[in-house]
Amino acid sequence: MTKKFRPVDPSLHARFTGIRTFMRLPSEELCEELDFAIVGVPFDTAASFRAGARFGPEAIRNASPLVRTYSYDHQIDLFEYVSGIDYGDVPVIPGDIHESYKRMENYLVPLLEKNIVPIVMGGDHSITLGELRAVAQKYGPVALLQFDSHADVGDIHLGMKYTHGTPFRRAVEEGLIDTSHSIQVGLRGSLDGPEEIDDATTLGFQVIRSVELFEMGIPKLIKTIKRRVGDAPVFLTFDIDFVDPAFAPGTGTPEIGGVMSREALQIVRGLTDIHFVAFDVVEVLPMHDQSNITASLAANIIFEMIALLAVQKRNNVNRKSCTARKID
Amino acid sequence: MTKKFRPVDPSLHARFTGIRTFMRLPSEELCEELDFAIVGVPFDTAASFRAGARFGPEAIRNASPLVRTYSYDHQIDLFEYVSGIDYGDVPVIPGDIHESYKRMENYLVPLLEKNIVPIVMGGDHSITLGELRAVAQKYGPVALLQFDSHADVGDIHLGMKYTHGTPFRRAVEEGLIDTSHSIQVGLRGSLDGPEEIDDATTLGFQVIRSVELFEMGIPKLIKTIKRRVGDAPVFLTFDIDFVDPAFAPGTGTPEIGGVMSREALQIVRGLTDIHFVAFDVVEVLPMHDQSNITASLAANIIFEMIALLAVQKRNNVNRKSCTARKID
Amino acid sequence: MTKKFRPVDPSLHARFTGIRTFMRLPSEELCEELDFAIVGVPFDTAASFRAGARFGPEAIRNASPLVRTYSYDHQIDLFEYVSGIDYGDVPVIPGDIHESYKRMENYLVPLLEKNIVPIVMGGDHSITLGELRAVAQKYGPVALLQFDSHADVGDIHLGMKYTHGTPFRRAVEEGLIDTSHSIQVGLRGSLDGPEEIDDATTLGFQVIRSVELFEMGIPKLIKTIKRRVGDAPVFLTFDIDFVDPAFAPGTGTPEIGGVMSREALQIVRGLTDIHFVAFDVVEVLPMHDQSNITASLAANIIFEMIALLAVQKRNNVNRKSCTARKID
Amino acid sequence: MTKKFRPVDPSLHARFTGIRTFMRLPSEELCEELDFAIVGVPFDTAASFRAGARFGPEAIRNASPLVRTYSYDHQIDLFEYVSGIDYGDVPVIPGDIHESYKRMENYLVPLLEKNIVPIVMGGDHSITLGELRAVAQKYGPVALLQFDSHADVGDIHLGMKYTHGTPFRRAVEEGLIDTSHSIQVGLRGSLDGPEEIDDATTLGFQVIRSVELFEMGIPKLIKTIKRRVGDAPVFLTFDIDFVDPAFAPGTGTPEIGGVMSREALQIVRGLTDIHFVAFDVVEVLPMHDQSNITASLAANIIFEMIALLAVQKRNNVNRKSCTARKID
Amino acid sequence: MTKKFRPVDPSLHARFTGIRTFMRLPSEELCEELDFAIVGVPFDTAASFRAGARFGPEAIRNASPLVRTYSYDHQIDLFEYVSGIDYGDVPVIPGDIHESYKRMENYLVPLLEKNIVPIVMGGDHSITLGELRAVAQKYGPVALLQFDSHADVGDIHLGMKYTHGTPFRRAVEEGLIDTSHSIQVGLRGSLDGPEEIDDATTLGFQVIRSVELFEMGIPKLIKTIKRRVGDAPVFLTFDIDFVDPAFAPGTGTPEIGGVMSREALQIVRGLTDIHFVAFDVVEVLPMHDQSNITASLAANIIFEMIALLAVQKRNNVNRKSCTARKID
Amino acid sequence: MTKKFRPVDPSLHARFTGIRTFMRLPSEELCEELDFAIVGVPFDTAASFRAGARFGPEAIRNASPLVRTYSYDHQIDLFEYVSGIDYGDVPVIPGDIHESYKRMENYLVPLLEKNIVPIVMGGDHSITLGELRAVAQKYGPVALLQFDSHADVGDIHLGMKYTHGTPFRRAVEEGLIDTSHSIQVGLRGSLDGPEEIDDATTLGFQVIRSVELFEMGIPKLIKTIKRRVGDAPVFLTFDIDFVDPAFAPGTGTPEIGGVMSREALQIVRGLTDIHFVAFDVVEVLPMHDQSNITASLAANIIFEMIALLAVQKRNNVNRKSCTARKID
Repeated sequence: MTKKFRPVDPSLHARFTGIRTFMRLPSEELCEELDFAIVGVPFDTAASFRAGARFGPEAIRNASPLVRTYSYDHQIDLFEYVSGIDYGDVPVIPGDIHESYKRMENYLVPLLEKNIVPIVMGGDHSITLGELRAVAQKYGPVALLQFDSHADVGDIHLGMKYTHGTPFRRAVEEGLIDTSHSIQVGLRGSLDGPEEIDDATTLGFQVIRSVELFEMGIPKLIKTIKRRVGDAPVFLTFDIDFVDPAFAPGTGTPEIGGVMSREALQIVRGLTDIHFVAFDVVEVLPMHDQSNITASLAANIIFEMIALLAVQKRNNVNRKSCTARKID
Repeated sequence: MTKKFRPVDPSLHARFTGIRTFMRLPSEELCEELDFAIVGVPFDTAASFRAGARFGPEAIRNASPLVRTYSYDHQIDLFEYVSGIDYGDVPVIPGDIHESYKRMENYLVPLLEKNIVPIVMGGDHSITLGELRAVAQKYGPVALLQFDSHADVGDIHLGMKYTHGTPFRRAVEEGLIDTSHSIQVGLRGSLDGPEEIDDATTLGFQVIRSVELFEMGIPKLIKTIKRRVGDAPVFLTFDIDFVDPAFAPGTGTPEIGGVMSREALQIVRGLTDIHFVAFDVVEVLPMHDQSNITASLAANIIFEMIALLAVQKRNNVNRKSCTARKID
Repeated sequence: MTKKFRPVDPSLHARFTGIRTFMRLPSEELCEELDFAIVGVPFDTAASFRAGARFGPEAIRNASPLVRTYSYDHQIDLFEYVSGIDYGDVPVIPGDIHESYKRMENYLVPLLEKNIVPIVMGGDHSITLGELRAVAQKYGPVALLQFDSHADVGDIHLGMKYTHGTPFRRAVEEGLIDTSHSIQVGLRGSLDGPEEIDDATTLGFQVIRSVELFEMGIPKLIKTIKRRVGDAPVFLTFDIDFVDPAFAPGTGTPEIGGVMSREALQIVRGLTDIHFVAFDVVEVLPMHDQSNITASLAANIIFEMIALLAVQKRNNVNRKSCTARKID
Repeated sequence: MTKKFRPVDPSLHARFTGIRTFMRLPSEELCEELDFAIVGVPFDTAASFRAGARFGPEAIRNASPLVRTYSYDHQIDLFEYVSGIDYGDVPVIPGDIHESYKRMENYLVPLLEKNIVPIVMGGDHSITLGELRAVAQKYGPVALLQFDSHADVGDIHLGMKYTHGTPFRRAVEEGLIDTSHSIQVGLRGSLDGPEEIDDATTLGFQVIRSVELFEMGIPKLIKTIKRRVGDAPVFLTFDIDFVDPAFAPGTGTPEIGGVMSREALQIVRGLTDIHFVAFDVVEVLPMHDQSNITASLAANIIFEMIALLAVQKRNNVNRKSCTARKID
Repeated sequence: MTKKFRPVDPSLHARFTGIRTFMRLPSEELCEELDFAIVGVPFDTAASFRAGARFGPEAIRNASPLVRTYSYDHQIDLFEYVSGIDYGDVPVIPGDIHESYKRMENYLVPLLEKNIVPIVMGGDHSITLGELRAVAQKYGPVALLQFDSHADVGDIHLGMKYTHGTPFRRAVEEGLIDTSHSIQVGLRGSLDGPEEIDDATTLGFQVIRSVELFEMGIPKLIKTIKRRVGDAPVFLTFDIDFVDPAFAPGTGTPEIGGVMSREALQIVRGLTDIHFVAFDVVEVLPMHDQSNITASLAANIIFEMIALLAVQKRNNVNRKSCTARKID
Repeated sequence: MTKKFRPVDPSLHARFTGIRTFMRLPSEELCEELDFAIVGVPFDTAASFRAGARFGPEAIRNASPLVRTYSYDHQIDLFEYVSGIDYGDVPVIPGDIHESYKRMENYLVPLLEKNIVPIVMGGDHSITLGELRAVAQKYGPVALLQFDSHADVGDIHLGMKYTHGTPFRRAVEEGLIDTSHSIQVGLRGSLDGPEEIDDATTLGFQVIRSVELFEMGIPKLIKTIKRRVGDAPVFLTFDIDFVDPAFAPGTGTPEIGGVMSREALQIVRGLTDIHFVAFDVVEVLPMHDQSNITASLAANIIFEMIALLAVQKRNNVNRKSCTARKID
């Protein structure tokens, strides 16, 4: 049986029609029947180089009508198993990170309490700290699975404690992450010093740099990740700069030398049998994008995230029901 | 007293947040209390040169958060006098103009019956024929006030009767327009023959070419228009290529030598004391736009259209009430 | 001995000079001595998402002066073995697919009757049906070798039978394709349902998805293709979205996760010893291209197609002669 | 009676079809019946700042299908009075200005001898010297009518005598220009010194700076020009940077503060009753263009040039006949 | 006699060579002999819509090599009368406006104390408050001459007191501005309410909206400004969005309907006989620019500012001398 | 101990601040203590297709602030071992290759005499001949290690001996290269004839085409290179078109089918234990770049070059000292 909260039927409405919600999902109030909610967090004040990721959610929504509902790889119609909505944007305050963090918590906690998995579109990477605070209220410290070209475990940047280069050190300090089950994948590029990577290890993260990833190959990477996170509740944070700038030019601190889109898809697609409690895709900066390929990549990564939730539900479906109202 | 169907409060929600409805208006079902409704018609099959105006509504919505609610020129808060929603897009069929025309009628007639003024975002100029069919059901033949670099009164183009170069000849043939109160402003550019302009005159339109406009000046133009349309119900159709490509590069058949944005604004702003029953802004082609300036121009032209409605209501307000529900 | 119908001599004319025919080939009337003819089919009315591929032929011609005449991989000077011209564009009618199909047939049948291999530049993928109709008049049902991210075997899309998502179902229905020797390579992406791929199999096509291609590797892919098409006359259709959007951003319905340009070249280059009777490269949409890399890729794919013809002739050359007249 | 050498019929061939000759004119050998010939001179080695105008002819041809054949302002169908072809490009040598000058002469002199008016698409402004050398062989010293933001009468630039900043001093030295009937219009911008303008006066040119033009207005400018050039044979050279960069961003040494496109059109359109013997439009640099508006402006300026020739012929037509052969 | 601190000699070094300081000025330590210093303030945290003006100084420097040293309008070689350097950027902290304000003061006060006029390149408009604090230390409250589409006299925006929409209310509150000699020119666009303009008047500013400017004309505007500022020390702040987005697309909160570049130049050029003590050009956002025309406009506006200083010195030159050291 | 000539401290100055020298290095006079100097050679007159590489140095400098100082792969802080400056640009003359060659020599010889390794940013590939002339004065004939899609060993191109397609034949003729230790890597694409590659072999170069590289893999390539160059002094020239246009679109004669950025990095990073005496990165053409990814790639390749120098010094450091003066 198909769930009610699903994208507009493309056989009736051409893909380019309608107000741009993610995948043309309904934009609804929360209800118990939901499995996930797409949420935008258009905050970018904490970016150290190029700002502009505040337009990330808009761009990802615009690119998302081309995302369909069936995964041939998993042989699954996502919305047969999960229900979701586009829950709009957190009303962040540009320039005020602390107030914005509060608003992220206020926005996300009600979702989590209803067992709705938030799938957040950033925004710069500082927002993940706000999300983790909300998630930890529900789940306690979670395992962090981070795809990123930077470890983001800096301490003080230009005298600032809260920037997009420091969220995971702060999260560890606040007890939001169980680093013993956490792993960072994709680090690379020139550094200000070895501590940009070594500090992650010191904090307890397992680290797999891009060059190590290329050597071990994707199947082994997936095994390594699964072994690391185990049965812990997992927060998957996907910084789009994990992917090479040829595939993801629209980002603020690009690092050449990353994975291809097809590798990124293959990796995320392989992460079955993990207990995900929240997701985000961050650092999409549309003013630097070309032909929307970065936004399109982000939309497809989110498709794979939803697919992971659907696969998880396939064997153990907890049917829900409430009245949907379609936008468009 | 302020109306309920109005944009999200920018003092609470930063302009770049939220799902992109026009001006961040609510996206609601129709109700009697509404004065206008924004409607997208993302149809471009009838374009003879560049296609792509199907993404016009998306682009105009994206540009519209920067449009505010107060007109200093008219000294009026628009939403103190009028209520409006973003009513989504007509589910047009790319490649099938006749089915798409039917759907435009089906979508717009219920609005018109409720005395809601449709403000349509195109789409190529062929869509105005579909809109006129709907409008004529309510009002009979209307006066057409057309801003455009082309007269669009061709007969057969490449063997086709229904293209973006022929809507107004078809509309005259179908009895939808009262040409004796109609006027076309802005024609210019090289032509396939004199009939591209002379046929408009023959059909009964008054014609003011761009070079004539520059000579007469805007105040005289406005007087001329008002005299022409008189008390008739008026359909204002604004082809974005009326404006010079430096200000509106995002269009399909650009003609250099047009008015500046500031002139376009001044003209539309001056059209008070006219009985408008419908509006559209067409031929915005985002793939050819630069820095969204064309979409931004279109969004501001729509602002001026709403302002005209508000001014009209100021002296004779017909208050309405129904329950609003905000998106975002 | 060198044939007369060949590109302008680059040692006399700098590559950026001259009217843009493909590779700066002469633009001539047909004659018996020709081996191939480049033909544009600038039709895009049948595109379901972004339109604009009508400018594909222009863009590919503009990018083609950088394509030279010698293949080091095949150790062959193409024009020592084959003669070709740029035969201009089919005069298609935007908005009228049936009339356009007729014109494609009328344009291509005379070529095929003279044993000239058409190499078509699209246009959206719907045009391949028109080409197949022409080809079948000469050869009967042919083997289809399709590189594409989508199977394009849909039935009805938004109520339309003839779109860029349905040509190969129509072609099978019309008896134009011998599916028992046909193969589709590169399918991927989220789907509306499993039938988007499974129907291809049901219709008799062999299907190799992108993820399967990455696993089997290119040498095995080439063997598989050769085994499949055997000695049948083959129509090679190359949808540019077969290649990843990082390499081919200029297309209408991009799917991330495809092959790299170098892999695409390697595949086409390997397809020797196949009896090709027609080629096309479709879905190049220049308004979405960046730095012309998509058009440049398309031009190079056509180079490899011509090289395949030249290699085929090397052992069994059928010399021809007629008077050439250079453009430029 | 309509001439044979005219653009492809747009009622049969959609504007976006066919190999891109200027206005889709035939590309023919020279014959006596011709009145004008479009010629590309893709040379840019002499540019002092941005190079790339070698792609100017390509871009202008690509933009030209939107140019039609009837001038409503002059009430004239151009090709009822004049015949023309696209005569391709001069085979210039990048990096070798002297050899390129020779080739320009060799290419243009045969045209001039047949009384065919060359309309040249540049290329940087150095090419006008080559053209003037050809023109002077036929006509002796001619009046120069120059629209430009720079006087281009420098002497030595970085040790070089022949650059795009020096052609008109060289032309005066070589006796190619009759400065007593010559005039430069549009000079503006910051300068290296007053001599950048004063030297023009010293050499005998009349000079009207942009700020003077704005003050005197266009009607008076046209009168001034006509009085200046009198009955002399006139070479009209139009540097696209005469127009403001908002309207013509695609150029190498832009100067903000110029005329609008509509003013440029009005000026050229007004230049009736002048004895033009050659035209050029130079400094179109497509890599810096946006939405092709610069190329489109250039194509329309050429339309106005052809219209001037047609108007000239209207009263005194010298009919010609020879066999045309259409490209496409 | 020519000053030593002047741009690199373009007759020796082609304009595109060398490290990009403004106008290729030397980058030196401060000394008494200097008349002005170019300073970048790459701060954009306070932008309410698009961020990215932190790259404004880079873009203006890159565009500036085309700016020359002689003003034909003033008949003056700027560097015969004034000496200047590019003094680099204030080391602002993204995300920390108060610390950044302090650093602006620390950076600018030493200049002002040496009677060096700072010419600042922003940065969003919030930075002008920091500059005014420095200026007031030297001069007390100054007259503000503001060209802008927005009054920027808001009070609290999204709960924030210090944003790019509030600097001039703050400045008045802090006693940095003598509003009785201050004037705002160019206000326009839709508003959140009448107070966006009326508050400026209430605070004591004279206000001339864009539509008023178009009506009065530039000569009268200049007279009005001169009368208003009188003999007061004047801070000229030029928000690039004063100019229409067709001429200045690269900005964060564009308002269509502004002046043309040539009008902006004419206005600034006319402001002779005013006692300027500081200048800035703000809100240049390169990621939204096209062909660098916004940056180029900004660079030329700065040229006119320097010219005003030079003209001021012409009659009353205070010669200086110290050892220059050229960069490049 | 840390060297004094190093980039600005990013913990004090945000990366986007300051005048754009490479990596924000000081711009200093030469002194004995320096190990390397970054030098721009903005010359592009010798480009056969697209010109514009004269803006390469500007773009690479602009992209370079994101390059940091520590290589995790080599576990080395570069500036602990080497000192460097940005030594500005050679004052080349556009249009005059011989004078420009002289100036390159004059600029570079003093560096080489002080044992400073020049790292040159081009410019088109013709400049390497000028550099080799300088290098040979110091070292005699050197080994050439060339990464490139073209061999650049042509003889005469369009009658010209000195172009970007001929520098290495000229260098061999002038005795500047020891081909017995030289190697060219990455050749590919369609050719004008087999001699475009075979001539390199005939001249004594070892040649590894792109397809051969893909087959042998990078570790074997590195071994092959090291074996080839042996102990000879090596000039590494890196043509950015070695990399695929998806990763490096900003170049003049792109060839699809190249390596990915990550492969390019891995290759250069592996070239330890080679005696490098000079480097360049050429053919970066910013007007064709997208999101600066080509410039960013070039900046990172230079980072790896500096890292190779640092690694070389690690075991055998020759400490130096002189007074640094920071820009910014």
